Amino acid sequence: MNDAVRTEIDSDTGIGTIVLSRPGQRNPLSSTVMRQVTGALRSLSTHPAVRAVVITAEGPVFSAGHDLSEMIGRTLDEEQAVFDVCVEMMDAVQQIPQPVIAAVQGPAIAAGCQLAASCDLVVASESAVFGTPGVRIGLFCSTPMVALSRAVGRKRAMQMLLTGDTISAATAADWGLVNLVVPPEELNDQVRTLATRITSASPLTLQIGKQAFYRQIDLPQDRAYSAMAETMASNAVTCDAQEGMTAFLEKRPPVWRGA
Amino acid sequence: MNDAVRTEIDSDTGIGTIVLSRPGQRNPLSSTVMRQVTGALRSLSTHPAVRAVVITAEGPVFSAGHDLSEMIGRTLDEEQAVFDVCVEMMDAVQQIPQPVIAAVQGPAIAAGCQLAASCDLVVASESAVFGTPGVRIGLFCSTPMVALSRAVGRKRAMQMLLTGDTISAATAADWGLVNLVVPPEELNDQVRTLATRITSASPLTLQIGKQAFYRQIDLPQDRAYSAMAETMASNAVTCDAQEGMTAFLEKRPPVWRGA
Amino acid sequence: MNDAVRTEIDSDTGIGTIVLSRPGQRNPLSSTVMRQVTGALRSLSTHPAVRAVVITAEGPVFSAGHDLSEMIGRTLDEEQAVFDVCVEMMDAVQQIPQPVIAAVQGPAIAAGCQLAASCDLVVASESAVFGTPGVRIGLFCSTPMVALSRAVGRKRAMQMLLTGDTISAATAADWGLVNLVVPPEELNDQVRTLATRITSASPLTLQIGKQAFYRQIDLPQDRAYSAMAETMASNAVTCDAQEGMTAFLEKRPPVWRGA
Repeated sequence: MNDAVRTEIDSDTGIGTIVLSRPGQRNPLSSTVMRQVTGALRSLSTHPAVRAVVITAEGPVFSAGHDLSEMIGRTLDEEQAVFDVCVEMMDAVQQIPQPVIAAVQGPAIAAGCQLAASCDLVVASESAVFGTPGVRIGLFCSTPMVALSRAVGRKRAMQMLLTGDTISAATAADWGLVNLVVPPEELNDQVRTLATRITSASPLTLQIGKQAFYRQIDLPQDRAYSAMAETMASNAVTCDAQEGMTAFLEKRPPVWRGA
Repeated sequence: MNDAVRTEIDSDTGIGTIVLSRPGQRNPLSSTVMRQVTGALRSLSTHPAVRAVVITAEGPVFSAGHDLSEMIGRTLDEEQAVFDVCVEMMDAVQQIPQPVIAAVQGPAIAAGCQLAASCDLVVASESAVFGTPGVRIGLFCSTPMVALSRAVGRKRAMQMLLTGDTISAATAADWGLVNLVVPPEELNDQVRTLATRITSASPLTLQIGKQAFYRQIDLPQDRAYSAMAETMASNAVTCDAQEGMTAFLEKRPPVWRGA
Repeated sequence: MNDAVRTEIDSDTGIGTIVLSRPGQRNPLSSTVMRQVTGALRSLSTHPAVRAVVITAEGPVFSAGHDLSEMIGRTLDEEQAVFDVCVEMMDAVQQIPQPVIAAVQGPAIAAGCQLAASCDLVVASESAVFGTPGVRIGLFCSTPMVALSRAVGRKRAMQMLLTGDTISAATAADWGLVNLVVPPEELNDQVRTLATRITSASPLTLQIGKQAFYRQIDLPQDRAYSAMAETMASNAVTCDAQEGMTAFLEKRPPVWRGA
């Protein structure tokens, strides 16, 4: 049996790719799969060649969400364990130092929608749709709504959550859930272009910036500024910042220490 | 004298409707009216037939906001009492277990705008406009801005608050304050369609989800996830979730215990 | 040598203007310049004729951001001092009682983007662009992202921060960073029109409202409502509110005490 989660590393571009690869089952996020994704994220994050991570999927569906068979006839503790594993995966996406880009080639539903929404950036094929239809089957998408409501705002999140209706990739871009919508046949190229645009920056700077972003986003503004003034001062004295600023003033390309 | 607030229950659809019915005075939100709306919300919320609530109004105006005559020549304590009653009404909209949909048929101004913004979902007629013009009469819309700024974001809220200018229903939809804009003659039908789409779900699931939404929305992400993982586990062991997931896997319609 | 920051007061309109006036150096926000802007904001804020403040710049660029020469070869304490001065300026924009409008005539980059994003309202010329490209030179725009991410949301802020790419004025308006986009030749007139529209309101009411806005925006909704119900009651008993409400009911223009 093939693994449900494949990992690929392209040494030329520095892109590590995590591929959900159970297309026949619509890429369910079972506990096993989620643990594998978390493991793959952590493994890629410490690989010296990997400077950006892409999460994508095989087949027509990105992910239909949790594996319902894991949630029928279980105890409260067993249910809790599934969602703890789920939250751990979502956290891992934002905790690893590299930027993580979702390449959403098809429907991203429930926890699948949440996984996309948890990535730093989202590129979607025109054939992708996004939805949180748990309400239709008695299980409100309460963990997906943490990521969803923080991406699209209150009224739009509530609409998706209460109706269970999906939105198109274009609507998702209009609402701020998706950064870029592209024709299906261009998805991989556009994601690679975006990723390599980003990875031409200093890995250390990207790491500092990504961690800083999530540290400040939920703070009141005054506390966010205190934290970020410190972060930026520490960033400024790093070799890569000193090199980057000097190269900019000398009108030459920078040479990153990590490169 | 007719009541300023009418309540209707449609047993067929399970929709309870609260109608502001002082069209000649542009549906002012006096303390009396606000207490009646709060009372109506609580009363509908415990009615066994009511599975969704609609707030709408008679006449060309949704609501022009507070009754200014209540605020002239009053003591600080009397003023405070008005705004306490107002906040209590806005809280009640979000506290009752059923989804609440604003059906905005005309201008929603100041506290009228706030009332619409406080509903879980907002459907607006093309003839509706939204505004917070208190600044023009010396009384900044500081309580309306709590709901407004959380729906449309900082710069757009500030623009409405500082200028007092209204925005069209289309702009309100573009900014995320309104979910759906429809021709005036379709407002009631479209709201009913939306409400019945939602109420085909399990009432228990809707209650869990609505309460969870407001519990998590203001929390930092990590605390939101802790709360929601618990919520979702508890939701998953309910009969309606077990039935809903089983029915989905068996490709049959679910039968909710509450139905 | 001319000052890097000019201040103008138009007694007719009550508009105080702060002009970044080092166009040849693309209006760098050096520590000296930032202290001058902070000083100008505080000075204008206590000037009896000034009822609104505009921040704009000379030349083709609004501001290219920090003065990099101040950040090369410095100690951690020296770097920290620069960002403390920067945060102090951004805070001053929001702390002064008058509304502050950014009139962005050209590229607003890094701390320049942050300065625009920190203003209460932003009017941009069609020739303006906005960007946070620090990542390209090794110094992630971590302090700018505090203002940016609160204006445009998570995914869009992350895109700008990770890629360093600029967005057009039209995109900035679509994303909620900019309130109004106008042809270059109309910028000054449109800003004056917006400012005088606002300053026809009571200065006291504007002060109460602006301070209330920033006090409530980062609070959980229940605490925001507690604070704002008090604020609105206190506002309601002021002479200007009593005059404004009375004048409105009597269908005559109000006469503000401060006017």
